[in-house]
Amino acid sequence: MSTSAVPVNLADKLSQFSDLWSQKKVAVLNDYEVKLAKLKGDFVWHSHEDTDELFLVITGRLTLQLRDVDVVLGPGELFVVPRGVEHCPVADEETAILLFEPAGTLNTGGAGGPMTKAAEPLG
Amino acid sequence: MSTSAVPVNLADKLSQFSDLWSQKKVAVLNDYEVKLAKLKGDFVWHSHEDTDELFLVITGRLTLQLRDVDVVLGPGELFVVPRGVEHCPVADEETAILLFEPAGTLNTGGAGGPMTKAAEPLG
Repeated sequence: MSTSAVPVNLADKLSQFSDLWSQKKVAVLNDYEVKLAKLKGDFVWHSHEDTDELFLVITGRLTLQLRDVDVVLGPGELFVVPRGVEHCPVADEETAILLFEPAGTLNTGGAGGPMTKAAEPLG
Repeated sequence: MSTSAVPVNLADKLSQFSDLWSQKKVAVLNDYEVKLAKLKGDFVWHSHEDTDELFLVITGRLTLQLRDVDVVLGPGELFVVPRGVEHCPVADEETAILLFEPAGTLNTGGAGGPMTKAAEPLG
């Protein structure tokens, strides 16, 4: 089998975009996707009824507001928001994250609204 | 819903074990697992017939030997070995990696042998 042998360098990929709250696909694993995003400010409260969602902070600082507690993530820290749990990501400074979730998972889950945006391929 | 609000700090988790070639589960996402491992030396040639396998290097340097090419990963670089593709991980220095794959994926895939070891919970 012919195999693409090019690793995904996360810093290189992050240097290729600057738009906020826009998920960029960088790898596929079975029917799951690895995505990168840059965040700053407040997102919207939402949940994903059908899937857990993994956030890994690469640079910066991310607060995952849950209804009963805030989870604060710095570089090298990850958290899995369970399916059905409402959350609102907030970043006081520009923050770069890696997301891992099933292909097609929308950024705003079931909430919809103007910040809804499908993930885009990158590189 | 009550939610555990403790982030997974990858450096902290890595400080909690020292055995090589032993996968430690640190998070679950749906029916997938996030695992950490420390590697040094040569592993065994194997493949996973039913799943792709994601390697992300945290510290050190990992060579994923494929039959036709070597993929060399440094910190912050990831690679997905497609299902069915034979690979042999090699690390000249001690290397810490994050793995992402379906729960129950064996480290030696279909090859078996003395290095086969089920993933263990950590922390």
